[in-house]
Amino acid sequence: MSHTVAIIGCGLIGRAWTIVFARAGSNVRIWDSSPSVLENAMDALHATCIEAGEDPAILSCVTTASDMQAALKGVDWVQENGPEQLEIKQQIYADLDRQAPPEAILASSSSALVASQFASELKGRSRILVAHPVNPPHVIPVVELCPSPDTAADVMDRAEALMRDVGQVPVRLSQEIDGFVLNRLQAVLLAEALSLVAQGIVTPQGLDDTIAHGLGRRWTLMGPLATINLNAPGGIADYLDRYGPTMARLSNSAARGEAFAAETAQSIAATLPSPDQVPTLSRQRDERLAALSRFLTSTSQDK
Amino acid sequence: MSHTVAIIGCGLIGRAWTIVFARAGSNVRIWDSSPSVLENAMDALHATCIEAGEDPAILSCVTTASDMQAALKGVDWVQENGPEQLEIKQQIYADLDRQAPPEAILASSSSALVASQFASELKGRSRILVAHPVNPPHVIPVVELCPSPDTAADVMDRAEALMRDVGQVPVRLSQEIDGFVLNRLQAVLLAEALSLVAQGIVTPQGLDDTIAHGLGRRWTLMGPLATINLNAPGGIADYLDRYGPTMARLSNSAARGEAFAAETAQSIAATLPSPDQVPTLSRQRDERLAALSRFLTSTSQDK
Repeated sequence: MSHTVAIIGCGLIGRAWTIVFARAGSNVRIWDSSPSVLENAMDALHATCIEAGEDPAILSCVTTASDMQAALKGVDWVQENGPEQLEIKQQIYADLDRQAPPEAILASSSSALVASQFASELKGRSRILVAHPVNPPHVIPVVELCPSPDTAADVMDRAEALMRDVGQVPVRLSQEIDGFVLNRLQAVLLAEALSLVAQGIVTPQGLDDTIAHGLGRRWTLMGPLATINLNAPGGIADYLDRYGPTMARLSNSAARGEAFAAETAQSIAATLPSPDQVPTLSRQRDERLAALSRFLTSTSQDK
Repeated sequence: MSHTVAIIGCGLIGRAWTIVFARAGSNVRIWDSSPSVLENAMDALHATCIEAGEDPAILSCVTTASDMQAALKGVDWVQENGPEQLEIKQQIYADLDRQAPPEAILASSSSALVASQFASELKGRSRILVAHPVNPPHVIPVVELCPSPDTAADVMDRAEALMRDVGQVPVRLSQEIDGFVLNRLQAVLLAEALSLVAQGIVTPQGLDDTIAHGLGRRWTLMGPLATINLNAPGGIADYLDRYGPTMARLSNSAARGEAFAAETAQSIAATLPSPDQVPTLSRQRDERLAALSRFLTSTSQDK
């Protein structure tokens, strides 16, 4: 099924979304409020395709729109990637809701704001949701779909179907929650990780090795619940029966918010690649993520 | 460097360790207090090699010992995989410490007990540590090395070097801590995961997808700290400056031990493969883990 999609905001996330939709054969219109960002977008998209092992020919269905209204003409999906500032977001959604076709779904890439904060006053509030990707979505397929209290159930159904159509893995939330699911899981693990390093129990490298060469591998193949379902002969219920009290004790003694201390970050930073290497390492990471995605697809049993 | 190793206890973990050492060219003596387990061990090892894509010819350096003393003759490393019961463990270590060559290191695969609980009364307490694998260690390379207060620093150095020698990824802890590192990280993530499912925010499948098709992929490539080092232009210090307050808020509102409730496990169990599928799914998981290990080695930049 072919879609017509507008990408509003063409920074890193907007460009990655463009590749997702273009790869799936959608017609994609891109627009950014900054003329210079928009002018450079096609070149940047070309470069990102090469890095991710995608054929740049997929970009033939991408066009640059001269203004927001032109971008929105005839679309069935809008993926908005504006700044994470409430007033700007509210203004963007007022404009989008006024100009987009009435049937079009308006989806925000926001990770910090929930849809009720920028949609609840709008006429089209039932067609607005958050579709939160993991950066960058063309190599990491999960997308959290989070409704506001006003988002219609059939909008969520259509959003889920469209995301599957374009090759992403939608995760549907039942209601708004601070941090959605992914960052809540990341936050608790990071708190304990930072605390263990700050206490000197383990080095930053040792901490990363514990996940990268250990637990992370299981989780990548099947997620944490399916993982424990195989860690006791009687499945997950047996697991909680055997190990629940231990796991409860460990989580009760775990670190919380106080672990996110600037001093910890400074001392860990000294052991990690310096900030000037971030762009190069990010590109290498994305290349490896693209390869990992191909590997996981090739060995998947049941997806 | 060639090692001579005794595997004490030939259940699943002991056999996986046997493959680790045999693959690295060590001389391996295996022994189990149960004659039937020992009798079936070579056949089971053969089958595990085939499943993991290992040449069963590596088992030519593995011999079955008639008793513990025969297994220990001339070894430089003992990997003990007995039951996680304190009295049994204390008895095993009394026997091992009396019978093993004085220079041999005695390492326990224990995940539930720390070495001081079974070593502190023994003459050889300075050579005893926990070397906690992730099941199964022949396809998941991380091993947590946890000293007791009595373990000598040079024993830890030798343990770390030997584990690298045989192709594992040792993570050295500075002191005993309940759950070591890996299960502390698993516990906090599981608590929040179970809670989000119990609240109905997300389905078990959605929860697993969030990690397997999202965060887990980044963590598998580089671990959680190296991950956030690339998630802000100025590296990890910049990340904590920008997102630390949000992550602190999320972890302060996260679930703890109360999340490990039997009712939650029951309702999740209904959505996951049933316990009678656990053996088959575990074999498939291990085959995929072996393939993932080969993939990660092939794309590794700097390990």
